[in-house]
Amino acid sequence: MNPDLAQERRRATFDPEQVTSLLYRGPENVRKRRYLQNAAIQDQVLRGSKPWAFQSRVEQYETALQMFIYMMKKLDEMGVTDPLERMYYQEAGAPHYYNPMALHTGMFIPSIEKQGTKEQKERWLPMARSLQLIGTYAQTEMGHGTFIRGLETTASYDPSNQEFVLNSPTVTSMKFWPGGLGKTSNCCLVMAQLITQGKKRGIHLFFVQIRDLKTHRHMPGVESGDIGPKFGFNSNDNGYLKLSNVRIPRENMLMRYSKVLEDGTYVPPTNQRIGYGTMVFVRAHIVTNSARGLSKACVIAIRYSAVRRQTEVSPGGPEAQIIDYQTQQYKLFPLLATAYAMYFTGRYAEDYYEQIASEIEAGNLESLNQLHAVCAGLKAFSTWACTAGIETCRLCCGGHGYSHASGIPKLYTYYTPGCTYEGENNVMMLQVARFLMKIYPDIKRGGPIHEFVQYLGADLTQKSCMTEEVALGCLLKAFQHRAARLLSDAAARIENLVRSGKSRQEAWDASTVALTWAAKAYCHTFVVRTFSQIVSDAAVDKSTKDVLTALCKLYAIDGIIENLGEFIEDGFFSPHQVSFLKNKLADLLAEIRPNAVALVDAFDYPDKTLDSCLGRYDGQVYPALYEYAKNSPFNEQEVLDSYHKFIKPAQTEQSQRAPMARL
Amino acid sequence: MNPDLAQERRRATFDPEQVTSLLYRGPENVRKRRYLQNAAIQDQVLRGSKPWAFQSRVEQYETALQMFIYMMKKLDEMGVTDPLERMYYQEAGAPHYYNPMALHTGMFIPSIEKQGTKEQKERWLPMARSLQLIGTYAQTEMGHGTFIRGLETTASYDPSNQEFVLNSPTVTSMKFWPGGLGKTSNCCLVMAQLITQGKKRGIHLFFVQIRDLKTHRHMPGVESGDIGPKFGFNSNDNGYLKLSNVRIPRENMLMRYSKVLEDGTYVPPTNQRIGYGTMVFVRAHIVTNSARGLSKACVIAIRYSAVRRQTEVSPGGPEAQIIDYQTQQYKLFPLLATAYAMYFTGRYAEDYYEQIASEIEAGNLESLNQLHAVCAGLKAFSTWACTAGIETCRLCCGGHGYSHASGIPKLYTYYTPGCTYEGENNVMMLQVARFLMKIYPDIKRGGPIHEFVQYLGADLTQKSCMTEEVALGCLLKAFQHRAARLLSDAAARIENLVRSGKSRQEAWDASTVALTWAAKAYCHTFVVRTFSQIVSDAAVDKSTKDVLTALCKLYAIDGIIENLGEFIEDGFFSPHQVSFLKNKLADLLAEIRPNAVALVDAFDYPDKTLDSCLGRYDGQVYPALYEYAKNSPFNEQEVLDSYHKFIKPAQTEQSQRAPMARL
Repeated sequence: MNPDLAQERRRATFDPEQVTSLLYRGPENVRKRRYLQNAAIQDQVLRGSKPWAFQSRVEQYETALQMFIYMMKKLDEMGVTDPLERMYYQEAGAPHYYNPMALHTGMFIPSIEKQGTKEQKERWLPMARSLQLIGTYAQTEMGHGTFIRGLETTASYDPSNQEFVLNSPTVTSMKFWPGGLGKTSNCCLVMAQLITQGKKRGIHLFFVQIRDLKTHRHMPGVESGDIGPKFGFNSNDNGYLKLSNVRIPRENMLMRYSKVLEDGTYVPPTNQRIGYGTMVFVRAHIVTNSARGLSKACVIAIRYSAVRRQTEVSPGGPEAQIIDYQTQQYKLFPLLATAYAMYFTGRYAEDYYEQIASEIEAGNLESLNQLHAVCAGLKAFSTWACTAGIETCRLCCGGHGYSHASGIPKLYTYYTPGCTYEGENNVMMLQVARFLMKIYPDIKRGGPIHEFVQYLGADLTQKSCMTEEVALGCLLKAFQHRAARLLSDAAARIENLVRSGKSRQEAWDASTVALTWAAKAYCHTFVVRTFSQIVSDAAVDKSTKDVLTALCKLYAIDGIIENLGEFIEDGFFSPHQVSFLKNKLADLLAEIRPNAVALVDAFDYPDKTLDSCLGRYDGQVYPALYEYAKNSPFNEQEVLDSYHKFIKPAQTEQSQRAPMARL
Repeated sequence: MNPDLAQERRRATFDPEQVTSLLYRGPENVRKRRYLQNAAIQDQVLRGSKPWAFQSRVEQYETALQMFIYMMKKLDEMGVTDPLERMYYQEAGAPHYYNPMALHTGMFIPSIEKQGTKEQKERWLPMARSLQLIGTYAQTEMGHGTFIRGLETTASYDPSNQEFVLNSPTVTSMKFWPGGLGKTSNCCLVMAQLITQGKKRGIHLFFVQIRDLKTHRHMPGVESGDIGPKFGFNSNDNGYLKLSNVRIPRENMLMRYSKVLEDGTYVPPTNQRIGYGTMVFVRAHIVTNSARGLSKACVIAIRYSAVRRQTEVSPGGPEAQIIDYQTQQYKLFPLLATAYAMYFTGRYAEDYYEQIASEIEAGNLESLNQLHAVCAGLKAFSTWACTAGIETCRLCCGGHGYSHASGIPKLYTYYTPGCTYEGENNVMMLQVARFLMKIYPDIKRGGPIHEFVQYLGADLTQKSCMTEEVALGCLLKAFQHRAARLLSDAAARIENLVRSGKSRQEAWDASTVALTWAAKAYCHTFVVRTFSQIVSDAAVDKSTKDVLTALCKLYAIDGIIENLGEFIEDGFFSPHQVSFLKNKLADLLAEIRPNAVALVDAFDYPDKTLDSCLGRYDGQVYPALYEYAKNSPFNEQEVLDSYHKFIKPAQTEQSQRAPMARL
């Protein structure tokens, strides 16, 4: 054990186990999580041969395929069915790889379960569960992403033989990006424009077999393949799909909600938004997932910052731990606070989803808009904050952060797509803004509105209650004030533009920057509120609560300082109050300092899950880096072939011009 | 040609050629640059076989080695000696690769030239130029980066046989990271602690042969190798080096400035800082280099944003070019302005370096501190802004930005190390702060100080002169005011802490966040000032100057809005004045919109240099993406071997439990 890390752990003022328990919903869940992680870590098959970064892309894909198939079997044998528990096992078993079948279990099967008829479920689900069918979800096209109404793939109904004819009429209409589509899947759910009786009926899901179930070769009319190497996710065969007059039976349209009858009559769903549930569910889970990414990066960067020493404090003295530098604390501790904030917020969003989902399932869509806005906004807000935070963590590790030995570049490339997939973040923020503007008249009128948005009607002329103590309540009020004011500003801007002669659409389009500011402020407030509420409700001892409260305050104060203009341009804070915040910020960094390592320990990631030479629990960073280097495939030969192929001939050629001297 | 892009070019209100000329210092240089780029593009050898991302790491290294050796020869044959001109050729010839011999030409040879004696230059330079010697610069150690006084490698002088004995006494003392050290180089300059006559004499450079010149095998006592795969730069063999009692003759210490005599007597340099020149030179050039990275990302993202369409504006109407969305403009146009700002600032810094360098060469070190602070600060400021900007450009390209087909991930991994190498950015900013605090008493006294810092003594009670027009002069004054105030705040904080009983060092350490704010504000002001000065001096026609002025204003206003708190917490701007800025920001986005494509065309990067399906000059984005996908190595086989190895057996195993149904 590195002595600096050992001392850090001795110095902590609280018991990390209590925090672990709070993060993972109680000691019983912590015990289960550890059991599954250990089972994966001790499994010989999953031990793997060499670091993922030493593998070619094909090797990465093959390893991923092998490991995830193996883990699927193991988890079934163990009777583990809960998706979160399965993830804990997989995260420790194959932290380095993305599952090429992730969309099979995560999107293909659930979509059939939710949108298929009873007959469709009976026909496809057993085969899917036994891997006879390996499916994916083919929505995104080369030219069409978040705006799904713009999808070009067509499914035209032919009543003469009761079939749909699927086509990719243009280059841009090719399906592009779906995970596992390139090589792994033999079927998929294709999102396509339904055409029947000569009319476009909007987008619907169709079950399409793309490869032969025995030979895995392409079905007639199907062209598909891998889309090529990417920033990350290279163990996945994200694919493309071109359909040319591919015929499928009428029964292959997912018909739980809308239907095409034998004669081609279209029966629309009773509610257009009935299918939104899955989308919202996925977005709620992205919040926790982002927190997972950032928290891992924080573990690595904070442990390493306690081990790394740089620059003597007094001439000739020992070099300081870099975690003792205020500038380093100012980068890392707000991110640590952000990781906690997003964990708690994600958990809250998931609970809220479950609550509303049962209402929706029962046909009550009243709260869907509210839920939809919250999840869209938090998805965008959390992925932006967490992925940017991962990069900051990497940069905080200096040069070594850049090596794949650190594990952080992989975290970044793994989590940054979250800003784009499942709804592009800027579009998400504008959806939040649209929701807020829609209920704005109610807010202003003081009508009955949800507690989430009630504060938006507050009196904007009020000033902050902030004192030198910097109470959490005053911090939260500041966030509420800013969100209310920015919303009011955006609304006023739109009204001004309309008054000056623009159409409402033009005025909206010329105000999207201001609307985005308002939407972000709304999400930010949501996170601060959730964080402070969960900390205040937490059943932990006083020393633990003190530490969590300090983190929560840091999160809020840092959020204010980073966006200070938005909090003070209307004079809400006096300059004096701002100085309280700045002083408190510096005090909090010093206050959190002795607990920083214990706070990352509390995330309870086994070393294998982190997959990082810098983030090791024992702090043996440098021997691990040396080991990683020695094992680099480049070092298998003392002299590479390329020396003989390129360097030697160049030297010979050059030395014929300038004769070689002796050293 | 994509019709949208064609129309963008027709709509431009200025002549891009004038801007190109301004960027590259006149039409003659533009002509040369194009000549060299075309020579590289048309060269059959350099045409290459397949995209870099389709290659294994060994293939990337081999291709890079082959191409750069070839280009070295070609450039010599063409008689091109200017490093910038050589870079233009190489950038177009092998945009995809990092030269494994970059440090040979960029650091090894120049260091011998600058710090070697006449005899040393005669001995080593001809061999280095003919590649008999391939060298690198081994400074960074596994445990020691920016704080070079902390380096642990020792060179102990043994007068009995007039040799130095070099050792890596610990794991942390191993050299780690130097480019080309792992496999390519046969010698290097090792930075080591000199010990002679029983005393440590500080760090010095030593020429050490690490591999046999004939066989390329390791010399006795030398262990070296590649450090393994990284986020990027994988065509380079960044290496490690462990020295165990490696003996080199006394004449191998670089002795132009300091010397060790035969008997071991140490002769120190006349001035300790004499070697700073190279370091400052490199940092000045990093500014322009960062601009190059960001500008390439802007070309890709802006052209793509003009081609990409997303979301219908009116129901059933065509989808809009995404560049028409205000939120997209608000992300991309300030970055475009930043790219220009950094180009101009880098050019200015290089000129300033040349001016001071000749003074330094003549032994006059008076301006060295000023130059050192400016270059350290601009290096940090530009790398932070440009690398974060590259990522924003990538995210602005949606999903496709994530594919290596976009070319942007590679730009990011190529440029982000600039935040760390040649002086870690946070340390750089604190060096700027140290310089500013050092001259602060002179500033307050109104003593004779350099024009760069004069404004820092301005009266802080003054308010902004900003009017609705938003004049450049008022914008610059705002930056100056903010920098002066933040410096004054940091100084006051330190004084308060000292008065409260802390030592000066403790007070400094507890104020580094505030000091960094002040240093960043100083650098920001420098960039705004340089940008506005170069635009105002530019010999271009009125329409061109108008466009550049709009960009410059956008850069400044965006800088204010992004850091609004710092500009208004003391009431410098009234709320009314802030609203002028916000309105002007929105107006400028609309004003720049029709010229955006022409402004990126003006950077004049041939397609091959960009290496991007999204950034193509002709806008044929989608066919290019399709082509890239089809050529993915994964698609060479319709069915991968892994299907037979892993999927098929799993299906068989599963179907024995649940018998296979018929689809």
